[in-house]
Amino acid sequence: MSLTIYRKAHFNAAHRLYREEWSDDRNLEVFGKCSNPNFHGHNYELEVGLTGTIDPETGYLIDLKLLKDIIREEVEEPFDHKNLNVEVPEFANLNPTVENIAIVIYNKLRQRLDPGFKLTVKLYETPRNFVVYTGD
Amino acid sequence: MSLTIYRKAHFNAAHRLYREEWSDDRNLEVFGKCSNPNFHGHNYELEVGLTGTIDPETGYLIDLKLLKDIIREEVEEPFDHKNLNVEVPEFANLNPTVENIAIVIYNKLRQRLDPGFKLTVKLYETPRNFVVYTGD
Amino acid sequence: MSLTIYRKAHFNAAHRLYREEWSDDRNLEVFGKCSNPNFHGHNYELEVGLTGTIDPETGYLIDLKLLKDIIREEVEEPFDHKNLNVEVPEFANLNPTVENIAIVIYNKLRQRLDPGFKLTVKLYETPRNFVVYTGD
Amino acid sequence: MSLTIYRKAHFNAAHRLYREEWSDDRNLEVFGKCSNPNFHGHNYELEVGLTGTIDPETGYLIDLKLLKDIIREEVEEPFDHKNLNVEVPEFANLNPTVENIAIVIYNKLRQRLDPGFKLTVKLYETPRNFVVYTGD
Amino acid sequence: MSLTIYRKAHFNAAHRLYREEWSDDRNLEVFGKCSNPNFHGHNYELEVGLTGTIDPETGYLIDLKLLKDIIREEVEEPFDHKNLNVEVPEFANLNPTVENIAIVIYNKLRQRLDPGFKLTVKLYETPRNFVVYTGD
Amino acid sequence: MSLTIYRKAHFNAAHRLYREEWSDDRNLEVFGKCSNPNFHGHNYELEVGLTGTIDPETGYLIDLKLLKDIIREEVEEPFDHKNLNVEVPEFANLNPTVENIAIVIYNKLRQRLDPGFKLTVKLYETPRNFVVYTGD
Repeated sequence: MSLTIYRKAHFNAAHRLYREEWSDDRNLEVFGKCSNPNFHGHNYELEVGLTGTIDPETGYLIDLKLLKDIIREEVEEPFDHKNLNVEVPEFANLNPTVENIAIVIYNKLRQRLDPGFKLTVKLYETPRNFVVYTGD
Repeated sequence: MSLTIYRKAHFNAAHRLYREEWSDDRNLEVFGKCSNPNFHGHNYELEVGLTGTIDPETGYLIDLKLLKDIIREEVEEPFDHKNLNVEVPEFANLNPTVENIAIVIYNKLRQRLDPGFKLTVKLYETPRNFVVYTGD
Repeated sequence: MSLTIYRKAHFNAAHRLYREEWSDDRNLEVFGKCSNPNFHGHNYELEVGLTGTIDPETGYLIDLKLLKDIIREEVEEPFDHKNLNVEVPEFANLNPTVENIAIVIYNKLRQRLDPGFKLTVKLYETPRNFVVYTGD
Repeated sequence: MSLTIYRKAHFNAAHRLYREEWSDDRNLEVFGKCSNPNFHGHNYELEVGLTGTIDPETGYLIDLKLLKDIIREEVEEPFDHKNLNVEVPEFANLNPTVENIAIVIYNKLRQRLDPGFKLTVKLYETPRNFVVYTGD
Repeated sequence: MSLTIYRKAHFNAAHRLYREEWSDDRNLEVFGKCSNPNFHGHNYELEVGLTGTIDPETGYLIDLKLLKDIIREEVEEPFDHKNLNVEVPEFANLNPTVENIAIVIYNKLRQRLDPGFKLTVKLYETPRNFVVYTGD
Repeated sequence: MSLTIYRKAHFNAAHRLYREEWSDDRNLEVFGKCSNPNFHGHNYELEVGLTGTIDPETGYLIDLKLLKDIIREEVEEPFDHKNLNVEVPEFANLNPTVENIAIVIYNKLRQRLDPGFKLTVKLYETPRNFVVYTGD
């Protein structure tokens, strides 16, 4: 029996969207007010889903406490109250769009989880804009 | 890398459910109070999802401003504060159930978007009733 | 010990904003697209609050089942899936703005409740626009 | 045209997580405070999805009133305000984890629905933890 | 300058409503299915508000970390994953209605907070039923 | 008849909490990770309430379009996608705590509104932390 279990988490961070090799004008043209050199920020809301089979002994797909700890170590501690461009190494050369942040989170969680689980990352940048990434 | 990005929108509209060729009794039997000839209405909440690959240069799947403009032109402007049965041509001969409204929205957005994107339309008629249509 | 208890309810209805004695142009100028003669509609979400003292024997301010029944009889049954302008007598000569709907609901509930309770009516016309009326 | 329609429902229940054949210490080690022998409880929020084709005559995938009645009979009446371990026969020998509750709900609804519909059960144990089960 | 700051918290618990000195029939008559002797449960969502003046040096009304710790010690730790009737001493002789739970929380927090703050406790028993208590 | 009408709005911004004349250590001690010199950010959600009497001719307390425009000019345009500390003059010498941001918003809106209206500002810094300011 295959099933997906989800756990929510959240972090608050500053970022800006830009490419270093582009002029300010070109960054503004492509990324609009998101390219503000002084940064802006968001409350990111995260839903992590794991698909797998249930352990018939416990009735658990995974102990959610374990998943919660992995999310805290891989996402909340390194990202929360940070400037993504300046302080998070994964974005040193990667534009921190909501798309790229979701992929970075996926890759960080993926290496900590049993390969038997399928992983889904849903990331809200605002209550109105969000992405889903499943590694496919 | 394939990913889905979502954008929310909303519109308020009046409608009634009925088939013109049926008697009032038969409409009432099938559609209940939703067949009220004087209309009732809803706040429709819409989530539009686009699945595709990320542009490695920008880190964007699509510029959400562009998607927002397409949703405004194809859905919000023609549907908001309208009577769907009376004023929206797509429902002149089509019962405006939440299922059919989602399909009409899908078809209108589909023709404005790059065929390379897979499109998902989620439409809430109330916070308790909603549909998802993916064109499959 | 004084405390306020709240109960939620909801109804879906069509309406239009206009004054019969005004020209169409003047109605459009004042009420914009809300004056559409073909009607539009909303999912109204209602929160009814009662302030009073707790019955020390039961620990209840009021039996919520009783409050739920009163809301159903006074608001949900007469308003749900109705055209407020056409079918609800209270709006025969009263513009069904969210302000006036809240006051009508307040007055209908007020006469069914013990005068010892203070009554609060919170009414959402959309998730973004709402009013609070307390009879003061 | 294939589409999925969703309907929400809810029930409040007590439960505990444990295996009868395990010692109290082992139950505490595996299930933590969820194994409290005096029970704890949740507001379970349920989203039932049906995937199928739309009836071209009505524009309905299914009459939601029918789905609502089935959910009330199979889930709300037997589960609401109950102790899942003590009073719900399906959990007499099955640990009522959110995973197992979702599967039980799926199986109960599945036998009441046309086999032509694909069924999806999403169950929130808290606003932060939830599962999706599709019978695959 | 007086202002109110709010912090949310939550706990999951089992309870039943009844008076020990009443017969089962009388308890059922007054409290309905909430009097189930096997208990049921809820996800309680709590909003604690403090009204006071802002410290001009910090711009804080209170350090929210301090408020969070007090809520954890006074409410979350003693109530979460507990049976309120059986395990929480305050309800040994007090019916754990949502009204009474809010008052107990208010009294526990009140004694830990500077008397200069006005305290507001909002407690959701379900997303549809909630109370506000301000000690007046 | 006095009533309060509310309108929601939102903006995304970066900020840090600190006092320039304090050492980094003291700022860290008082403001914790919120004092990060590289900034972090939030999606601020705003609810503006106006209390007054209803115009009997229109049934409006205020034309919400007018209120929406004032909020856009006074709050959304100057604050959205900005660094509050660096780019918003009101915070040049004022710590941008959620308390102070609410007061600044109140003062900006207050001077644009008819003195006959009582004004309420509710500002969410995160879904879990928020303030209410009423000018009292």
